[in-house]
Amino acid sequence: MLKGQMMERPLLIADIITYASDVFGAAGIVSNTVEGGIHRESYREAAGRIAQLGHALVEMGVRPGDRVATLAWNGYRHFELYYAISGIGAVCHTINPRLFPEQIAYIVGHAGDRLLFSDLTFIPLIEKLRPNLPAGLGVIAMTDEAHMPASVALPGLGCYEAMIAGKPTSFDWPELDERTAAGLCYTSGTTGEPKGALYSHRSNVLHALVAATGNRSSFGSDRRILPVVPLFHVNAWGLPYAAPMTGTSLVMPGAKLDGKAVFELMDGEGVHSGWGVPTVWQMLIGEMQARGRAPAGLQQVIIGGSAPSLAMITTFEHDFGVEVIQGWGMTEMSPIGTTSMLQPAEQALPLEERLKLKAKAGRRLFGVEMKIVGPEGTRLPHDGKAAGDLFVRGNTISSGYFANAAASAEALDAEGWFKTGDVATIDAAGIMTITDRSKDLIKSGGEWISSIDVENAAAGCPGVGTCAVIGVPHPKWGERPLLVVVAKPGEAPRREEILGFLAQRIAKWQIPDDVVLVEALPMTATGKVSKKDLRERFKAHVLPEVAGGGAQT
Amino acid sequence: MLKGQMMERPLLIADIITYASDVFGAAGIVSNTVEGGIHRESYREAAGRIAQLGHALVEMGVRPGDRVATLAWNGYRHFELYYAISGIGAVCHTINPRLFPEQIAYIVGHAGDRLLFSDLTFIPLIEKLRPNLPAGLGVIAMTDEAHMPASVALPGLGCYEAMIAGKPTSFDWPELDERTAAGLCYTSGTTGEPKGALYSHRSNVLHALVAATGNRSSFGSDRRILPVVPLFHVNAWGLPYAAPMTGTSLVMPGAKLDGKAVFELMDGEGVHSGWGVPTVWQMLIGEMQARGRAPAGLQQVIIGGSAPSLAMITTFEHDFGVEVIQGWGMTEMSPIGTTSMLQPAEQALPLEERLKLKAKAGRRLFGVEMKIVGPEGTRLPHDGKAAGDLFVRGNTISSGYFANAAASAEALDAEGWFKTGDVATIDAAGIMTITDRSKDLIKSGGEWISSIDVENAAAGCPGVGTCAVIGVPHPKWGERPLLVVVAKPGEAPRREEILGFLAQRIAKWQIPDDVVLVEALPMTATGKVSKKDLRERFKAHVLPEVAGGGAQT
Repeated sequence: MLKGQMMERPLLIADIITYASDVFGAAGIVSNTVEGGIHRESYREAAGRIAQLGHALVEMGVRPGDRVATLAWNGYRHFELYYAISGIGAVCHTINPRLFPEQIAYIVGHAGDRLLFSDLTFIPLIEKLRPNLPAGLGVIAMTDEAHMPASVALPGLGCYEAMIAGKPTSFDWPELDERTAAGLCYTSGTTGEPKGALYSHRSNVLHALVAATGNRSSFGSDRRILPVVPLFHVNAWGLPYAAPMTGTSLVMPGAKLDGKAVFELMDGEGVHSGWGVPTVWQMLIGEMQARGRAPAGLQQVIIGGSAPSLAMITTFEHDFGVEVIQGWGMTEMSPIGTTSMLQPAEQALPLEERLKLKAKAGRRLFGVEMKIVGPEGTRLPHDGKAAGDLFVRGNTISSGYFANAAASAEALDAEGWFKTGDVATIDAAGIMTITDRSKDLIKSGGEWISSIDVENAAAGCPGVGTCAVIGVPHPKWGERPLLVVVAKPGEAPRREEILGFLAQRIAKWQIPDDVVLVEALPMTATGKVSKKDLRERFKAHVLPEVAGGGAQT
Repeated sequence: MLKGQMMERPLLIADIITYASDVFGAAGIVSNTVEGGIHRESYREAAGRIAQLGHALVEMGVRPGDRVATLAWNGYRHFELYYAISGIGAVCHTINPRLFPEQIAYIVGHAGDRLLFSDLTFIPLIEKLRPNLPAGLGVIAMTDEAHMPASVALPGLGCYEAMIAGKPTSFDWPELDERTAAGLCYTSGTTGEPKGALYSHRSNVLHALVAATGNRSSFGSDRRILPVVPLFHVNAWGLPYAAPMTGTSLVMPGAKLDGKAVFELMDGEGVHSGWGVPTVWQMLIGEMQARGRAPAGLQQVIIGGSAPSLAMITTFEHDFGVEVIQGWGMTEMSPIGTTSMLQPAEQALPLEERLKLKAKAGRRLFGVEMKIVGPEGTRLPHDGKAAGDLFVRGNTISSGYFANAAASAEALDAEGWFKTGDVATIDAAGIMTITDRSKDLIKSGGEWISSIDVENAAAGCPGVGTCAVIGVPHPKWGERPLLVVVAKPGEAPRREEILGFLAQRIAKWQIPDDVVLVEALPMTATGKVSKKDLRERFKAHVLPEVAGGGAQT
């Protein structure tokens, strides 16, 4: 090999905050605090505090490769922990506080965390969990001395501000190998125990670069992004890295995620772009409709985590003039894989077609490769019709799971591609559409029915609020679809009405064999409908006899 | 080291064109051709032709590590060569046709080129040079069979279109080590023989990512960039990589670089952003002034290569509403190091202050580190006052020169930083200002006089067209400045007028001891004033006695 004669410098996370401090010293972080009130710091001030925190961590004995956990909302101290922990070569392990307490205890133990940094909100939870946590685990409250709780259950409870006070505001960050582990995030574990994705400096820096390159309209030193997506959820989609790298300020909502609080924070701080899951945007839309306007300055929302409905996209774009960009990804993808940004010819389409395009997962970011594969392992064409198991490959994608040989062994196919668990089509224009999670597909008489297709059709039915479709056992067809519906407040749609509505919209063999109304759908810790729980609940549901059910006619 | 569990995929140039073809299939390249007329191809079509070219190169025996040279204008075939040569693991060696013929022969020999691809324009030059070129060098004319010249001096002359015709339009690009050499570009050699910067796949892909991230306003699938900067000059500032990566179309001017041709191409093709050196923009400004308008759609010009004058910036921004962004870099930096993009608080400044900021080199891109160093090798503060030798470090920066141990040994300092040869200040806001090339500084009585400062002042004097300041030997002060002036057409500014003008603007000890008028300034092959030639011409110039000359009063 003839090697280039270029410097080989490691891609390191610490360089991002140093860069922001040098070059975008005026931009920074606005935080709604748990203690009350708004806190503001520039990236330059953040860099100083991150250095102080780095010194404190080293003094506390944190060594390269150690895991340091966080249980915290989106705020400036959580941001500082991201950089200081990774900067000294340790691993920033963000924990989702919405997991079941026993899952949190499992994760802390499995990760072997040495320290746990927690917002005041979660101190009672840790007190309750303390007997199930490792004895040597140090706990630090992310607050100042004035707000320290008197915790009997946590006798050695540390104080974040006391820890860093007086430490030097610069740090000679070590020159790590760029493949060094930097972050750890467990999947929500809809099947089996949670599994940990272990990010590297290289993967996180490259993710920030490709996210900023692929999604240019969100970033800039004249822009402010509000990450509703939590910092405890897969790096807040990379914003803690991509924002300072581009001089974009971050507006952190803290614990206040209801529609009113998010609206008012956006409105008051001139937020340009909001990033979050559909659930939060549904609450914001309610607030916008009540006030008859969007927050001042809000230009776009990035929606991920689960697919937004066409109705949500239409409300943002058509009713309020706020651009919607859908992002698709996974914890194991750092997370962004695709976005639904439109290209010039698509922008010129009629509104309805434009919005339908935005309802698709969209086109891949540079560096993310995708393939779809049929049942026999053969590659399927990118013709927009063939649907197959979606595999991905790239520098920002997991090659296995932390301390989990069994799950690691199953993560990749023989060619080294990661199995997403989604079923998808890819069209000739490069647009990927998720047709279903492979485990949510309904296998009816040798054919697959996409639960998502049926749900999208049913969501338009008068009286239907939210809904989910699952497969339930059927003696003849193997599985048949069951539609589970939460009615709109004050309405009571009838089974026959809904099925009649669907008969006009989807093929006969895709029409659910039955409809049940429920009070609420079970949700996972990351805000998705838990079909696992639904399948458990309805596993013995007796479907009525349906003429020709399951037949493709 | 605890390694992350992320895939490690090489950063490869071929992935950029594959990505553009998959995702931005409708964007592409518009070229003014040497044969006449406009040629259009989408990135998808380009990817197919690049695959064909890759097959042709392999069949011609080109092996990984081989150097393949180009002598060509900006056009689609040159773009295709960039990708096909690097894609198969060979090295794309772009040669500047404006070099002296003996330098071209030297470079081809030094690089050990196996093949030379040439636009029709340069076939006569190659015919003349043939006796001085290696016997085994194959030459290919970048044209179709209908336009092939009947060359007696080049009996085996190949034809580009014949070479690729009928080859498969896909290529299974090899999975190279990302540090593999991909491109070679020789410096113009203002001192000594030209030296070759040898870029790697990693450095070029990272350069595209940081350029697109740091300069977001130029790129997008709704945008078209016209690279006036040649593809034979340091990767056309990275545009052949950053444009397809972001779906930005490229409008290639071919051989037609006069003001009228550039204006009409921009105007007709709706170019959003033009990238080039001041010389070209001066011609465009002339055309804009004659027509009383800017080309339709032109929003910004990126000016690099040498610093634009304040007058040029003012004309674009104030008179025509076209944004100016200055870029600073070097052949050894891939090339972009800094840009003069403003931040929100700076955008709010009065016009005059804003334009002054744009006249500075600006802030570094992510991944480019800068330090300034004093005579004793100590680091100088970033206070906007201390001027020192500028060093840079990063993945996109050369660590040495191709097959040149002597030059390589001198390229880096003991800490591994590259010596730019520039003298600069860096201020607290991260803005770097070049005060001079270190070899152009005038050392007068132990003090340094910046030739750039004096030139900038003199450029505003009525009657002065272009000018340059050099140091000439002085018995008492060592050196004193001499101002060399080209008068504006039809004008004849007098020595006393110019010196009187300067006396109002710069310190007495900085005022040149003499002024000489010349017809034209000598230029280098890359369009910069050759101060080496000026110093040679005026080395025996006798300065008049000046009262107090050189004294700091």
